[in-house]
Amino acid sequence: MSEQQIAIGIDLGATHIKGILINEQGDILAQKTTPTEDGKEADGLNWKRSIRDMIEGFTKESKAEISHVGLAAPGIANESFTAISWMPGRVIGIESFDWSAWIGRKVDVINDAHAALIAEHSFGEAKGKQDVMLLTLGTGVGGGVLIRGELLRGFIQRGGHLGHISLDTEGEILGISNIPGSLEDAIGNSTVERRSFGRFRSTDQLVEAYRKGDHFASYLWLNSVRKLALGICSLSNAISSELVLLGGGITHAGPDLFQPLAAFMDVFEWRPGGANVEIKPAKFSSWTGAIGAAAFAMRKSAYVE
Amino acid sequence: MSEQQIAIGIDLGATHIKGILINEQGDILAQKTTPTEDGKEADGLNWKRSIRDMIEGFTKESKAEISHVGLAAPGIANESFTAISWMPGRVIGIESFDWSAWIGRKVDVINDAHAALIAEHSFGEAKGKQDVMLLTLGTGVGGGVLIRGELLRGFIQRGGHLGHISLDTEGEILGISNIPGSLEDAIGNSTVERRSFGRFRSTDQLVEAYRKGDHFASYLWLNSVRKLALGICSLSNAISSELVLLGGGITHAGPDLFQPLAAFMDVFEWRPGGANVEIKPAKFSSWTGAIGAAAFAMRKSAYVE
Repeated sequence: MSEQQIAIGIDLGATHIKGILINEQGDILAQKTTPTEDGKEADGLNWKRSIRDMIEGFTKESKAEISHVGLAAPGIANESFTAISWMPGRVIGIESFDWSAWIGRKVDVINDAHAALIAEHSFGEAKGKQDVMLLTLGTGVGGGVLIRGELLRGFIQRGGHLGHISLDTEGEILGISNIPGSLEDAIGNSTVERRSFGRFRSTDQLVEAYRKGDHFASYLWLNSVRKLALGICSLSNAISSELVLLGGGITHAGPDLFQPLAAFMDVFEWRPGGANVEIKPAKFSSWTGAIGAAAFAMRKSAYVE
Repeated sequence: MSEQQIAIGIDLGATHIKGILINEQGDILAQKTTPTEDGKEADGLNWKRSIRDMIEGFTKESKAEISHVGLAAPGIANESFTAISWMPGRVIGIESFDWSAWIGRKVDVINDAHAALIAEHSFGEAKGKQDVMLLTLGTGVGGGVLIRGELLRGFIQRGGHLGHISLDTEGEILGISNIPGSLEDAIGNSTVERRSFGRFRSTDQLVEAYRKGDHFASYLWLNSVRKLALGICSLSNAISSELVLLGGGITHAGPDLFQPLAAFMDVFEWRPGGANVEIKPAKFSSWTGAIGAAAFAMRKSAYVE
């Protein structure tokens, strides 16, 4: 019998670093969090130290030996999953930074949305599924795709940037990806102020006004949900997942998101032979990156080899 | 040493049935073609007979023993690749038709655009590549995707319907897929008369007028190519292929397609670290379905198992 695996998962986020200790069943054994303070020190030395300290802390406090360490971060991971190879503008100092050397043991590094997908496949709503898409609806729209149980990586490991599809070729180019009228711009938090001509500062505010029956808010929110539906339909026709999971802060809208979304899917989804894709909220929310990073480190060979 | 493989590939098209005999190097040993005459007899008995006769003819005439038979057809193949499970409106009688029973030997059945992709990967422009997208630009826009050398099938085997992404959510719904403003409608032959308000009946005519400097034709064609570029960019961000092949009759426009396409890709493509996707014309044209069907039958385990 092989020994029980115990993994540390770290999620390097824009505002917080989250760390988790889990076993191979996904039971949470310990959790830690600390502010990222991105930009405080040159080359991110401060958050690099915080992550090292966090891993050292888990290692000391754990009763069992740590078998794996995973790190989730924004940006594109390299082919060998040892570093983030591309992440301009944020967490300066992460590009090509060798985490295994810094920590003094092997660290598997993965994009944070890919980690969220793996968290759901390992311990959440995608358990037992083979073809799954996850969209993270937050400041922007990120994503990840499992195809026959394997992580879609593709050329330069860019696969799964599901928010960066054009839904309006005459639209404006706002995000990182050079795409006019992207899905990310249609529903992401970063454009809600702009979309509402300054009336709403967050999706929470917009959805709150929608709940109260505000006409403008209703139009605006339903139009965003309609575009999300069309994004899912487009991606379904191209990639064809059996399950679409939605995660990220915008899903806290709950039925105010999922009910109109289902109605728009009824209008637009192409359903050969009557088959329709299942759409569900993700199980994990703010700890998903850390859980996924730990799961990825434990099960890497299943996902990418 | 294993014996040389010899495969028959049949392409059941809208107007013609094409048959080919190839070896495992892709050398063409024999070719046959006959009209489909879709709808002439109930349940397509006429084209079913034509295909049986064609296979019998190849078998009799071949010096070596036939090792494999493949059939490419429009529609969605079933999970075991023994039949087309879904194809409404055309080639009535094909849905769930058991080709192996009809022919009296094992026949591997595959979607025609998937076959075209496999033809390119086996013997054409995608040889040696792992992550490849093929778009067939014809009456409609079809496609196929290879991911790490395997055919993307997905839920209900729908994967690769690359023409059925929305590029204009306010657009009209014209095609089979219920998608407003689809890529298929933006460039496919079936909408050119509509897009040109009756001025051009085919993409050939449209491109001819563009070559002569006709202002309206220039706008119309360049707008279609712009939308194709944005479709490729969108799909690249989601799927991230290393190579995009374009096939189908519209690619006969040659540099009048590929030069403006490259210019639009320069404007819109997201190129992390400077990396850009390669776009090339497919090697095979009208025989691609037959070649791909034969290649699929010979190499099925590499593509789908």
